[in-house]
Amino acid sequence: MERREVYLDHAALAPLDKRVFLAMEPYLKGGYGNPSSIYTRGRATRDKIGDCRTEISWILHCQSDEIVFTSGGTESDNLAILGVARANSKSEILNSKQIQNSDVQNSKLNSMFQNSESRCKGHIITTQFEHHAVLNACKQLESEGFEVTYLPVDKDGLVKLEDIKQAIRPETILISIMYANNEIGTVQPIAEIGNWLKTQKSIRQLADKSQNNGKIYFHTDACQAAGYLDLDVNRLNVDLLTSNGTKIYGPTGIGILYVRNGVKIQPVIFGGGQQGGLRSGTENILGIVGFTEALKIADRERTGESARLAKLRDYLIDGVLTRISNTGLNGSKVNRLPGNANFSFYGVEGEAMVLMLDEEGIAVSTGSACNSDSLEPSHVLKAIGLSHEGAHGSLRFSLGRRTTKQDIDYVLAVLPSVVSRLRSISAIRSDKEKI
Amino acid sequence: MERREVYLDHAALAPLDKRVFLAMEPYLKGGYGNPSSIYTRGRATRDKIGDCRTEISWILHCQSDEIVFTSGGTESDNLAILGVARANSKSEILNSKQIQNSDVQNSKLNSMFQNSESRCKGHIITTQFEHHAVLNACKQLESEGFEVTYLPVDKDGLVKLEDIKQAIRPETILISIMYANNEIGTVQPIAEIGNWLKTQKSIRQLADKSQNNGKIYFHTDACQAAGYLDLDVNRLNVDLLTSNGTKIYGPTGIGILYVRNGVKIQPVIFGGGQQGGLRSGTENILGIVGFTEALKIADRERTGESARLAKLRDYLIDGVLTRISNTGLNGSKVNRLPGNANFSFYGVEGEAMVLMLDEEGIAVSTGSACNSDSLEPSHVLKAIGLSHEGAHGSLRFSLGRRTTKQDIDYVLAVLPSVVSRLRSISAIRSDKEKI
Repeated sequence: MERREVYLDHAALAPLDKRVFLAMEPYLKGGYGNPSSIYTRGRATRDKIGDCRTEISWILHCQSDEIVFTSGGTESDNLAILGVARANSKSEILNSKQIQNSDVQNSKLNSMFQNSESRCKGHIITTQFEHHAVLNACKQLESEGFEVTYLPVDKDGLVKLEDIKQAIRPETILISIMYANNEIGTVQPIAEIGNWLKTQKSIRQLADKSQNNGKIYFHTDACQAAGYLDLDVNRLNVDLLTSNGTKIYGPTGIGILYVRNGVKIQPVIFGGGQQGGLRSGTENILGIVGFTEALKIADRERTGESARLAKLRDYLIDGVLTRISNTGLNGSKVNRLPGNANFSFYGVEGEAMVLMLDEEGIAVSTGSACNSDSLEPSHVLKAIGLSHEGAHGSLRFSLGRRTTKQDIDYVLAVLPSVVSRLRSISAIRSDKEKI
Repeated sequence: MERREVYLDHAALAPLDKRVFLAMEPYLKGGYGNPSSIYTRGRATRDKIGDCRTEISWILHCQSDEIVFTSGGTESDNLAILGVARANSKSEILNSKQIQNSDVQNSKLNSMFQNSESRCKGHIITTQFEHHAVLNACKQLESEGFEVTYLPVDKDGLVKLEDIKQAIRPETILISIMYANNEIGTVQPIAEIGNWLKTQKSIRQLADKSQNNGKIYFHTDACQAAGYLDLDVNRLNVDLLTSNGTKIYGPTGIGILYVRNGVKIQPVIFGGGQQGGLRSGTENILGIVGFTEALKIADRERTGESARLAKLRDYLIDGVLTRISNTGLNGSKVNRLPGNANFSFYGVEGEAMVLMLDEEGIAVSTGSACNSDSLEPSHVLKAIGLSHEGAHGSLRFSLGRRTTKQDIDYVLAVLPSVVSRLRSISAIRSDKEKI
């Protein structure tokens, strides 16, 4: 089969769409001013940013002033988690006795609150297999005196609503659960959690007015979901939502955080008071224009593109599992992003596969791209219970806008021989080691 | 005189240089991968970022791993100030008695340390007329238990080394002084302060090993200086230096923080551990390529451009002061950025002038562009002792790469009538009020 260039790492980075570039071009040619300036050029730029906010708000079904522009997914996740936790931090937490003595007699509630003797600044619930931007923001909060529960996920990567219910304490202020996982593509039941939590909030408000008015904020990292799944924040019932440019064929260095009006949150970065004081710094006009165009295209093409990719993905999954023995699919077959396929090829090192496929023109990744520097096996694959061998032999194919059936056919033609070559080398090595 | 478009607000935002756009273009056309990926496209991107670091390090005379890419000047200032203060925070501070009993007998030292009975987490020194990114990061630190001294400046906007000496305490961990002021263009004696501090550090190291090893870190915000002044961090003797894209004809949403190796600093944003863990998040490749090209051009053309602009600036200053009565130049005549001219036109509102000049095609600003939303008179102009009237009647002209003598002639032709028209309206108003 003729060699071709096949880029299957869209989950790490989706290259800038030409239409996004064209939307940015007038601005790249210098057609902008400082949006805080009051002369024509500044006002025009401010108006353009306002238009971008409006267009994004239509897609998220929110108010335009609920959008905060940041430098990317990592900063958005940090602003959501650090910003909400610090703003709602408490040094004095009511202990469970006070709650048991309250006038609300609800045995379910009491059992939920029974392990809450601790006096932390506040409690956050997340999962073991979030992006590092969430996990390490949570670690930082632990060092500041907060407590964090890292929920397990099942073998498909799904978090159980029941586990969330069990983990909630009176001092819980934030739940952060990713919409779709970057490594194995598992789609979480965000709307189900959000809707349940909405009821839960009212129960808590009755139970304990002194606890942050009973509010538990709900954040979701939707970086991988944007472009494939519905981002309607009201249907999802989320209070905060992260999205970024590089995952939706937009520019690098730009992201948004949706922050529902009324959420108590403080900035992570301080300065000139732009964006209602929540994110200071002159607005990144180039990034904002590019992100908005990218999100509009992604939203418009979402349904058709998801169906197209899901077909190609299933064709790839079936082809791989049929042709290559001793191989497993990681993640759910059903609750899965349309472009994601993640396998474990037992007896092979993922990194060796990436390099050999690269020689054949195929770009894929092992573990999360953000961790490729690290030798640690992926925390996501560990969280779904994969063995060390299974995690190290994992490969992620993430399909995208320009992926064709010919690309997948090429992968299916090349991959089996790559895996068998590596397995034979590995076998020789094992023999040598035995000597 | 024929109407022309004259943009004189380069200090707020210098529009993207065409050469910068051309350097970014291959990347804007999708030619990049995730720099953490190990396949060809990822490695090429990582190499490109490495090349950018190297090129920047040549200009700053530092190591390439001492450059941290951020989302702009505000984030860089925040990382420097919050990151250094929090990493060097102390709950237990030796009081002055312990220091007086130490084996170092130095009366100068004792007098410096005499007011240090307080038990703050650490002490920061800055000036009253820094950028809000510095001032509000300092305010945040105050809310976290740090103490901050905001030094006054003289009528030219210069900070006195003697004041810095007096302000230093045993618990001082950071001094942050901007290289050149954004509003009135005053250039501070950064090298003089840096060199003195270097000696001071050794004195303190002898005096008190328990105090952060006696280290006082020195940060300068060089956003306005880059492109005009020397950025050699060793000649300046700074430990941290901020620069950003929008002030040097580079893209929006990108900045750098130089962090000298050995500086104890912690991240403000947490995640995948990119950039040695100090600034997580996939590197903003588009911004990095653009910023690097912009800095290279600025550095190459710095000497010639500074001389050209200084001449035009003086022509503007002389023209304005000669033609318009009851007008003063704000800031130093000597220690001044080549492109900056800031005047107070007494009896006129700055905002009214900006809007009338805008109608004539001239873009200038009143106060700092970052504060144009605010009705408060500029804190910079207050700091140099300007009256309320002087501050409200201020106008900043910031010249740039495409500014010509014809532009200045046009301003000198238009401005006097704008000022006199506004003064006459203002006089009528005053009469009416009297009735």
